[in-house]
Amino acid sequence: MDLAQIKTPTLIIDPIKCYDNIHFMVKKAQKHNLIFRPHFKTHQSQTVGLWFKKQGVEQITVSSVQMAKYFSGIYKDITIAFPVNVREIYDINTLAQNTQLNIVIENLESIHFLDKSLKHNTSYYIKIDTGYNRTGVNSESLDIINDILDEAGKNMNLQFKGFLCHAGNTYATKDIDEIHTIHNKNLKSLSALRNNYQNKYPNLIISIGDTPSCSLSDNFEGIDEIRPGNFIFYDLWQHHLGACSFNNIAVAMACPVVAKHSNRHELIVYGGAIHFSKEYIELKNQKIFGQVVKLTQDGWVQQNTKNYLTKLSQEHGTIKADSKLFREIQVGDLIGIIPIHSCLTANLSDRYIDTQNQTIEHL
Amino acid sequence: MDLAQIKTPTLIIDPIKCYDNIHFMVKKAQKHNLIFRPHFKTHQSQTVGLWFKKQGVEQITVSSVQMAKYFSGIYKDITIAFPVNVREIYDINTLAQNTQLNIVIENLESIHFLDKSLKHNTSYYIKIDTGYNRTGVNSESLDIINDILDEAGKNMNLQFKGFLCHAGNTYATKDIDEIHTIHNKNLKSLSALRNNYQNKYPNLIISIGDTPSCSLSDNFEGIDEIRPGNFIFYDLWQHHLGACSFNNIAVAMACPVVAKHSNRHELIVYGGAIHFSKEYIELKNQKIFGQVVKLTQDGWVQQNTKNYLTKLSQEHGTIKADSKLFREIQVGDLIGIIPIHSCLTANLSDRYIDTQNQTIEHL
Repeated sequence: MDLAQIKTPTLIIDPIKCYDNIHFMVKKAQKHNLIFRPHFKTHQSQTVGLWFKKQGVEQITVSSVQMAKYFSGIYKDITIAFPVNVREIYDINTLAQNTQLNIVIENLESIHFLDKSLKHNTSYYIKIDTGYNRTGVNSESLDIINDILDEAGKNMNLQFKGFLCHAGNTYATKDIDEIHTIHNKNLKSLSALRNNYQNKYPNLIISIGDTPSCSLSDNFEGIDEIRPGNFIFYDLWQHHLGACSFNNIAVAMACPVVAKHSNRHELIVYGGAIHFSKEYIELKNQKIFGQVVKLTQDGWVQQNTKNYLTKLSQEHGTIKADSKLFREIQVGDLIGIIPIHSCLTANLSDRYIDTQNQTIEHL
Repeated sequence: MDLAQIKTPTLIIDPIKCYDNIHFMVKKAQKHNLIFRPHFKTHQSQTVGLWFKKQGVEQITVSSVQMAKYFSGIYKDITIAFPVNVREIYDINTLAQNTQLNIVIENLESIHFLDKSLKHNTSYYIKIDTGYNRTGVNSESLDIINDILDEAGKNMNLQFKGFLCHAGNTYATKDIDEIHTIHNKNLKSLSALRNNYQNKYPNLIISIGDTPSCSLSDNFEGIDEIRPGNFIFYDLWQHHLGACSFNNIAVAMACPVVAKHSNRHELIVYGGAIHFSKEYIELKNQKIFGQVVKLTQDGWVQQNTKNYLTKLSQEHGTIKADSKLFREIQVGDLIGIIPIHSCLTANLSDRYIDTQNQTIEHL
């Protein structure tokens, strides 16, 4: 990697790690006979999208109509895993005309709106909540689910595809056991749902989404489809959850060092909230916004001592440095930082490059 | 305002409030005989930049070389208030050729680099730290300041402009008294500095930057220049600090409502971390990511009961709603949300519109 070409905070993507992360999930899906419909909101890149395609992926997930439009050039079976935003009906109709579009419904109001405005064949999942408490119908509220099925059943343009769940509560766990506990409870709730609807809808699909469960579990009983997204890059959050090893993390931000403060043992980098986002994890009552790595010709390597990004303002990042790092790094150097939440960091990045300095196109 | 045209999360800017905020600061600067060099990192918009120009502003502050390039089309005297990133020397030279460029220096390493590479006349401030502990030379470290002045004095392209300070610690205060205390301590440190260097540099400028002090104080003794930025929009953070009234806040995000959950009295909006940033304030041990307002024909109005954005994921926002709001708002409606930190929210926004639905161009 030619570091001299990097002038401003730049997200470096390691294609080999990405390939391995995709391969791991493709194999896991094959082993458990699952449809693999990866979520593309993490990378938002057609180039990365083609890496998935090379490994046989044909169905994808996105989180906005805008992303669906962007990826519709290279993928023709797209799930927008967000409660349908009826205000975007014009674009939804355009997409539904040209792709196998799958939307997510969780209330009757949106069906009533779609009755008046949806013009093309569209599949829909019912969003199910098994305990995350964000969106979705409680998996035990069969009366609401039946109402949705009845109401949507009257609309010739809406085809029921199945139940979609996102156990986002696995991201707030303290250890791997807790992830397994949430995931296994999830499977039970979804299996009960399948038992209720299997006869009437023999082809229904049960779809789950979170990266921690998909990475760690080998129990997918009753599941038909997985939609993990973050795993393509992983990040410090996933590593701290135990969902990946440090070496699986496929992105690092290269940041110019602009100041050193020896009295506080702090390095100041060009790299702030507008590059990383303000997502943090807490270690020993200290907020951590990223972890330092050593940039190399081939990408980056983990350092023996852990040095963290401990403060962020709009453009400034502050690294609390041990003596060795403080001594080695000079003003004008680049330093590598593993982000806390790669989805938000990638979303903020003007520019991705790979470990050969090639620009990677993205939304 | 034609709300029907808004399909996705959209930042609405109220030009009248912006005009009043600019006017307030222009008048304050005039009253205290201060150079008004507003920071443009908050809005990052040439359109908004021209609103300043109409009120007589000719000198501006930005926080990156990229922003300096963007604004150099309409402003010819630009301070980049960030420790000079020597890796961007090519663009710095281009800018210095065409504008009155002012950079910020806080260490000898950057001067040594500039000695080899700076090709055009450039002014520089020495960054002074009076207690924020982010960047800058401690105001009492005269030996370091003298070293910088001596070293930079040998470079014919570098002209000493003065001392620049940003009391970012006023953003972490609990009440207005604390802001005044920090500000007044700041003035004392900077005055001491002036006394030390006034004879040798009779034209030196003392420049301060933070919006809370510039908004609240009427004591600018020994100060020559103010560089507030956030005040153009203000936000919930500034309001909670006491630096502005709620009605001074000039931006609100319009978000489509996509779900209602009556058991939790929660509204789910399309509007998440990729729209607001994850900046929060804490009220009664509850993280708050924004406050609900009622969108109207002319912009928005505050509601009698305070309803807050209490959770954010990538695209989802969760509003804890009182009974009245929950009853009034339907799926498909738009809801207005005042952001916590307008600089980060504006930076994330694909699109700004004004209260007449006109798109406001920005970086």
